[in-house]
Amino acid sequence: MDKPIRVIVAGAGGRMGKEVVKLVLGDEELELAAAVGRSDAGRDAGEMVGMGTVGVLVTAELQEALAAGQADVLVDFTHPEFAYEHANLAIAAGVRPVMGTTGYTPEQIEELNTKCEQAGIGGLIAPNFSIGAILLMRFSALAAKHFPHLEIIEYHGDQKLDAPSGTAVKTAEMISEVRESMKQGNPKEKETISGSRGGEYDGFRIHSVRLPGVFAQQEVIFGSFGQSLKIRHDSYERAGYMPGVKIGVQKVMEYTGMVYGFEQFVD
Amino acid sequence: MDKPIRVIVAGAGGRMGKEVVKLVLGDEELELAAAVGRSDAGRDAGEMVGMGTVGVLVTAELQEALAAGQADVLVDFTHPEFAYEHANLAIAAGVRPVMGTTGYTPEQIEELNTKCEQAGIGGLIAPNFSIGAILLMRFSALAAKHFPHLEIIEYHGDQKLDAPSGTAVKTAEMISEVRESMKQGNPKEKETISGSRGGEYDGFRIHSVRLPGVFAQQEVIFGSFGQSLKIRHDSYERAGYMPGVKIGVQKVMEYTGMVYGFEQFVD
Amino acid sequence: MDKPIRVIVAGAGGRMGKEVVKLVLGDEELELAAAVGRSDAGRDAGEMVGMGTVGVLVTAELQEALAAGQADVLVDFTHPEFAYEHANLAIAAGVRPVMGTTGYTPEQIEELNTKCEQAGIGGLIAPNFSIGAILLMRFSALAAKHFPHLEIIEYHGDQKLDAPSGTAVKTAEMISEVRESMKQGNPKEKETISGSRGGEYDGFRIHSVRLPGVFAQQEVIFGSFGQSLKIRHDSYERAGYMPGVKIGVQKVMEYTGMVYGFEQFVD
Amino acid sequence: MDKPIRVIVAGAGGRMGKEVVKLVLGDEELELAAAVGRSDAGRDAGEMVGMGTVGVLVTAELQEALAAGQADVLVDFTHPEFAYEHANLAIAAGVRPVMGTTGYTPEQIEELNTKCEQAGIGGLIAPNFSIGAILLMRFSALAAKHFPHLEIIEYHGDQKLDAPSGTAVKTAEMISEVRESMKQGNPKEKETISGSRGGEYDGFRIHSVRLPGVFAQQEVIFGSFGQSLKIRHDSYERAGYMPGVKIGVQKVMEYTGMVYGFEQFVD
Repeated sequence: MDKPIRVIVAGAGGRMGKEVVKLVLGDEELELAAAVGRSDAGRDAGEMVGMGTVGVLVTAELQEALAAGQADVLVDFTHPEFAYEHANLAIAAGVRPVMGTTGYTPEQIEELNTKCEQAGIGGLIAPNFSIGAILLMRFSALAAKHFPHLEIIEYHGDQKLDAPSGTAVKTAEMISEVRESMKQGNPKEKETISGSRGGEYDGFRIHSVRLPGVFAQQEVIFGSFGQSLKIRHDSYERAGYMPGVKIGVQKVMEYTGMVYGFEQFVD
Repeated sequence: MDKPIRVIVAGAGGRMGKEVVKLVLGDEELELAAAVGRSDAGRDAGEMVGMGTVGVLVTAELQEALAAGQADVLVDFTHPEFAYEHANLAIAAGVRPVMGTTGYTPEQIEELNTKCEQAGIGGLIAPNFSIGAILLMRFSALAAKHFPHLEIIEYHGDQKLDAPSGTAVKTAEMISEVRESMKQGNPKEKETISGSRGGEYDGFRIHSVRLPGVFAQQEVIFGSFGQSLKIRHDSYERAGYMPGVKIGVQKVMEYTGMVYGFEQFVD
Repeated sequence: MDKPIRVIVAGAGGRMGKEVVKLVLGDEELELAAAVGRSDAGRDAGEMVGMGTVGVLVTAELQEALAAGQADVLVDFTHPEFAYEHANLAIAAGVRPVMGTTGYTPEQIEELNTKCEQAGIGGLIAPNFSIGAILLMRFSALAAKHFPHLEIIEYHGDQKLDAPSGTAVKTAEMISEVRESMKQGNPKEKETISGSRGGEYDGFRIHSVRLPGVFAQQEVIFGSFGQSLKIRHDSYERAGYMPGVKIGVQKVMEYTGMVYGFEQFVD
Repeated sequence: MDKPIRVIVAGAGGRMGKEVVKLVLGDEELELAAAVGRSDAGRDAGEMVGMGTVGVLVTAELQEALAAGQADVLVDFTHPEFAYEHANLAIAAGVRPVMGTTGYTPEQIEELNTKCEQAGIGGLIAPNFSIGAILLMRFSALAAKHFPHLEIIEYHGDQKLDAPSGTAVKTAEMISEVRESMKQGNPKEKETISGSRGGEYDGFRIHSVRLPGVFAQQEVIFGSFGQSLKIRHDSYERAGYMPGVKIGVQKVMEYTGMVYGFEQFVD
């Protein structure tokens, strides 16, 4: 077997970060080089995620972890405000950044790409590591060419702040690129309860359901004469994103430059 | 076997009326006494519905059909504007009205009840003959006692004018009667696309999907800690209401007075 | 506008044939050249489908309709036993065959292809004209590369004789071509009620549900760590196949040779 | 506020037991009197479930925990082999047993009932604490009276050993009690792939789907002329059973005798 890929996890104490720590500790092809998390600094990373003592203490600062010089890849699930800075620090240290955060301008992405190429390493910025969600978006765009009448329904936990979800908007954008613009429904339709027809995007509707117990679900329903087609993706827990994260970690070892969007690795 | 029940169908040329004519012609326990439909007057009722010649010509006027004196029951799927008048005409002729129309004031219903009792006959006003829809509403109200967090999604053809559907509003009312009033969702939630969270009714949300190919579907989704419960009803075609219409026709033969709501006959 | 395409409908009195007659009569780009149906011979084709008199009488014999020499395309929804013969008759008459029947050997298809090329006309053999079903199959095969764990559930009316449905088997075949063979489930699993785990195909399972009221529905469910993906197609009525039939009729005007499988016209 | 109910959790180190420990520690109306779990003996119960130190050490023996004399209720998620013994020990110590295990004979239940009455305390044996699953079963039985044509589909993780699930069989039993026995489907139907029509129970079918990522889902689908009704319950995680466990703990404080089946507390 090849030597395992040595991974630094930044944002290790967050909900996604903890799943990444579990992924790395539980996978023989990966090795935990460091875990970074301000509020958990000093704890054993394994104990933090309930996997027993592993001998890697959480550090407070990313620079410290990078300076140790033993990592191949940084997996970063911190906040958008640190996104650009952390990617820069990683590249400067010769560590391939796999960024799960959003918050980059197109110019910053271009600049990070140049820096990756100069450093001769790969990098990845991926707001979404869910293979299933990527397939849903892709199939929806393919179907919209044949079935231009569609609506999107997305379901999330009842404490989510914004509606529609980012994935729903991204799906709507992808559909809109291939679907001829058209206002669906009866031109004279009227709502007796305001909002019941959902939010409008390019002439079709998006509905956001918020209920306790739901993690993240989305369906796109296409209606045509005598038939309907439905594509639905259910995410049950954050752990479901980890197979995607692992693919990202493996892929950045193989190319040079910064890739934007995990969908490029999903055939 | 008992003598068949003799039925007058009013609104026989309409989409529901045609289904009733087919029901009556195809069921040995029922007999077509007359079919009333202004724009089809003079046609053979059987030919009108593609069942071959049956020898009953469509008549233009309800009075004429009632005056013939051979009917037990009137099934009326005309318009709300004729609802009260037709029920009165039927009762005066000793014919039990089974009214599929809406548009009665509570006072009118009370008055029709009195007239039915005086005439010693039964009557039924039923905006909804769907046994499945009635069960959906009933189960939803039962579930709402345990799961107060819920949303309603209803699906209809894309040319439907009003949203939400009458059944969705009726379901919301029935739920609201048993559910403690509460505003669901995050108090700080905000829509980046207006309307995406649906229409609000007593603190929960109703979403109306409109797509070609869909006849009538509705689901009520309840969310709770770690689980969700979904009750869904799909109507594929008007013919699906006919078993309910037949039950109504049979029931009005058995009691005296005017019953409001078909749900009373669904245990 | 171009001149309408003149269509002969064979099997015009059958359930699919009647829908094709309605399609042709209701579409300005198509014209009914003839309708063939032994048991309805002599009736007006329009009256047969409830669209009023149109002046085209149903004929008993295909040869007669072909000999009239006015048709561009034959749409044939008769029986497999006539499949090969009818296609031959059409080609010999210079009429493009659009065959909705199955029952051809590979050699026959090859031979019909040669004859079409010699005659300089197009032809189509298509057991399935449903665009939605074709997309479901295609998306399922694409998803199976990423999610090798899957099950198929198909729903049809309760009087259907065979299980699983032809579409389910075809879907399974297409998935099987791209998915690495693997036996899913727990190797030690046992059924306390025989058959509950469904029928096995290449290590995954197919479930056939049979219920009254259902026309044709199918879903393919993919399960992975923390997520599931579901693709579902609902056919509500035969009319839903007509947009596909129309595409077939238009396409055969544009090429030479016999095409097998409607999926080739769905991008 | 009332004094909290003091709870012993047996099987505290198991998957359900850990959830109960979390429930008790996180709910002000409950207090953790003791946690019993052989392989975790000596650990802090709070640390064991990732909620920090709480000062209650896991003990190896139930007797020890009962002897401490401070508990009101025992919640037991151990194994069927200990079911009867543990219930007896609890009653003898004046502690109300809430048993999440199966494995009692009717005679044992009767005997435990007598002992509870003699001790003047309540008890509960509940193989299923899911309110949603109980509603699904109840609604299904109600619907089966009107829609005798139905099929059950249940979904569980792909490593589950037995099919169909216990809940599916229990649902089938409850439906069977109210539905007139009848063999559904076409009498001449045949399987081209053996098992595709599912397992047969009293003339209807049960389908067991096994996929990774799924926790526990079940749907009962009723089909009738032109319509279908679907009742579906999704369990996403063990935590979803905890509201039911809490109701059980509260209820046993209020009555005398042994109750079998949590459904009695769900109106």
